[in-house]
Amino acid sequence: MNAEASARAIDAVARTRAGTALAAEEIELLVADFVAGRIPDYQMSAWLATVACRGLSRAETVALTRAYVTGGDTLDFAATGRVVLDKHSTGGVGDTVSLIVAPLVAACGVAVAKMSGRGLGLTGGTIDKMESIRGLRLELGTDEVYRMVDQVGMVITGQSASLTPGDKATYALRDVTGTVDSLPLIAASIVSKKIAVGAHGVLFDVKTGAGALIPDQDRALELARLMVEVATGAGLRCRAVLTDMSQPLGYAVGNALEVREALDVLRGQEIPGLTELCRTIAALMLRSADPGLAPEEAERKVRGTLAGGEGYEQFLRWAAAQGAEPDALAEPGGLPIAECQEQVLADRDGYVHDVDPRAIGTAAMRVGAGRLVKGGPLDHSAGVVLRHQVGDQVSAGEPLAVIHHRDGVEPPVGLVRDAFRVSESPPSARPVVLQVI
Amino acid sequence: MNAEASARAIDAVARTRAGTALAAEEIELLVADFVAGRIPDYQMSAWLATVACRGLSRAETVALTRAYVTGGDTLDFAATGRVVLDKHSTGGVGDTVSLIVAPLVAACGVAVAKMSGRGLGLTGGTIDKMESIRGLRLELGTDEVYRMVDQVGMVITGQSASLTPGDKATYALRDVTGTVDSLPLIAASIVSKKIAVGAHGVLFDVKTGAGALIPDQDRALELARLMVEVATGAGLRCRAVLTDMSQPLGYAVGNALEVREALDVLRGQEIPGLTELCRTIAALMLRSADPGLAPEEAERKVRGTLAGGEGYEQFLRWAAAQGAEPDALAEPGGLPIAECQEQVLADRDGYVHDVDPRAIGTAAMRVGAGRLVKGGPLDHSAGVVLRHQVGDQVSAGEPLAVIHHRDGVEPPVGLVRDAFRVSESPPSARPVVLQVI
Repeated sequence: MNAEASARAIDAVARTRAGTALAAEEIELLVADFVAGRIPDYQMSAWLATVACRGLSRAETVALTRAYVTGGDTLDFAATGRVVLDKHSTGGVGDTVSLIVAPLVAACGVAVAKMSGRGLGLTGGTIDKMESIRGLRLELGTDEVYRMVDQVGMVITGQSASLTPGDKATYALRDVTGTVDSLPLIAASIVSKKIAVGAHGVLFDVKTGAGALIPDQDRALELARLMVEVATGAGLRCRAVLTDMSQPLGYAVGNALEVREALDVLRGQEIPGLTELCRTIAALMLRSADPGLAPEEAERKVRGTLAGGEGYEQFLRWAAAQGAEPDALAEPGGLPIAECQEQVLADRDGYVHDVDPRAIGTAAMRVGAGRLVKGGPLDHSAGVVLRHQVGDQVSAGEPLAVIHHRDGVEPPVGLVRDAFRVSESPPSARPVVLQVI
Repeated sequence: MNAEASARAIDAVARTRAGTALAAEEIELLVADFVAGRIPDYQMSAWLATVACRGLSRAETVALTRAYVTGGDTLDFAATGRVVLDKHSTGGVGDTVSLIVAPLVAACGVAVAKMSGRGLGLTGGTIDKMESIRGLRLELGTDEVYRMVDQVGMVITGQSASLTPGDKATYALRDVTGTVDSLPLIAASIVSKKIAVGAHGVLFDVKTGAGALIPDQDRALELARLMVEVATGAGLRCRAVLTDMSQPLGYAVGNALEVREALDVLRGQEIPGLTELCRTIAALMLRSADPGLAPEEAERKVRGTLAGGEGYEQFLRWAAAQGAEPDALAEPGGLPIAECQEQVLADRDGYVHDVDPRAIGTAAMRVGAGRLVKGGPLDHSAGVVLRHQVGDQVSAGEPLAVIHHRDGVEPPVGLVRDAFRVSESPPSARPVVLQVI
């Protein structure tokens, strides 16, 4: 602890509350003081709580983002001689997009480097999903990351612990002080990691709707714009999509189940919502890498690659290069399969009007697909596979979904059935991509 | 630490930020969790910072006030059979009012019990001023407090450490997290102590202007009203005055110097501003004790008591009963006198337009009249005595003020001179009592 640093922190709280902007150097120093232990937790948490109430200016958000990066490892792909892109999702139920888009874009000739976290709560992390693939190494060193990008054109790995120390310290505190839900704090946290990862560009997939971190569409749009501005200000090539999370994305929710679905899409299967979203994101990423590429041309390239199965081949090449066992993706016997499958049947005729993503996410978590606490165990084979999406016509007695679970685990049939709202008239169509920013 | 308590605290932060009122029991539990160490500092500080931004409803402020009192000692004057009143000032430069009003009101037959704190920074505490009186005991036990009220009709003592544990724990945190300046937090802190002290009524003197905790008059008025509402809600008989602190109150700033000035007022001297304020406050207190008393009657009684010197006699009786040495108030030789007196001379003719209370308070602190840090030493004889107030006509070369200091301490002559703004035309008259609530 340091008296001068404390006096600065107290002053920062009062000024942020009064709506006076802090200078970039002041924010840099505040975060540095906190990371170095020169100010106590309770002062940083008072500032974070004040930011959660009062917000930050664009310039302050940029400064906070940079401050988070300071003193941590950063990657630099210059030596690979390639344009390298990253992709980030704010998290959703059944969000398999990264596992599809990364090989798809790589198969189109643009390198992708993605560092992912583990999931907590309803939304699974990409790392957890990848753990379904036997042998796959998930904690690569920097040199290996460069080598993967150079030789395979893509890499997906866990995040180095020494990235963005300011974010790491602050995030832990936000989590326990009720200050997670603040747009500038969210934006700074996400964008700082993108800066540290060193990709040349990033595509943000911002979810909105009942199953999203930010259910309100206007706020989600504000976050998308804020992240694009902050990341662009930091020199990254940026695009964002605002996407619907008012129902689970695709059919599968659960780790191995989602990997299997990703492979289906890469082999050309059209899964309503999911395939379209992946095409949109992949095309935007191709145009980030090559700003001269026309939208139709990018779209055509993506469709061709999906149809030709080159994204699937790329996935297999990538998995093998990153250590997957030769038969880890073979069917059957590759990916883990749950012992029991419990069907959830419709109790009336009609149209699926809603599928509550939170209820489906909770059901998947209950059978072991998600974690209730940090470091908790997972059952990679467990989860829920929808048989129907919003808009489908169903008959009483027909399966709405199948719960995959271990013997001895009670399948939450009522929870899944209640997640489906079946009504007489068909709902109006709901696009998956709400806006491109 | 306790996981359930933490979850409640996180929820409280989010709800207070969202503008959802917490129930009284929730606030009670939050404070109890904090006092008992079931939640960490950083969670309470996040909530306090959120309150400082979002405010609290009246009902929440009342609940917080009661929560502060819970689990601490409380006094009860019922056994004395008297109506007992308390008086509180939000603090100002040269604020000697308590030392005048307490004996004045007691001499009018209404008992006064005042528990005071020590001063920090520019505004001195009543306890520090009383320490100038040799032998006076400042830390009385509960029984002695009752006995003083019963036998002498008044008591002024330091505050028991076991009063209002919730306020004590919270106050320490507010001080180091930049959340001191929040009306509901200030009101709850002050009123909780009044409830614990157990007096039947309380008079709040809320200062406003450059030398006050709350310089802005509208905000100070809001605080005065809030405290009256909260204290009234707790069953206390309450009045408040909003008073001017745009210049020091009276002439003397410094511990023994202010005690001497208090005795002057009690002996009938008319000190502009100070005497009037004391008369107003004393009359309001008499009417709190006896609601049937007409304003003019109360005023007449106070004037008569001042003129007759009965307040002065009461002061001497009180001091003796509380342990003062027989000659502690004799002049000369009773109260401490500084070795050196340095005159500060006017450098031009004109009218005193302003006397900056913060500059005078800082000058007094520099020569040892105030503390820079908690527990720091004081020179009880040191301070500044104004020779002129706002509105006075002065001539170049005439003394504006006298700095009382110890040999070897540099008197801040420039600071004191610059505190006076002398201009050609007289300023408009400035009342000391701005509003009675």
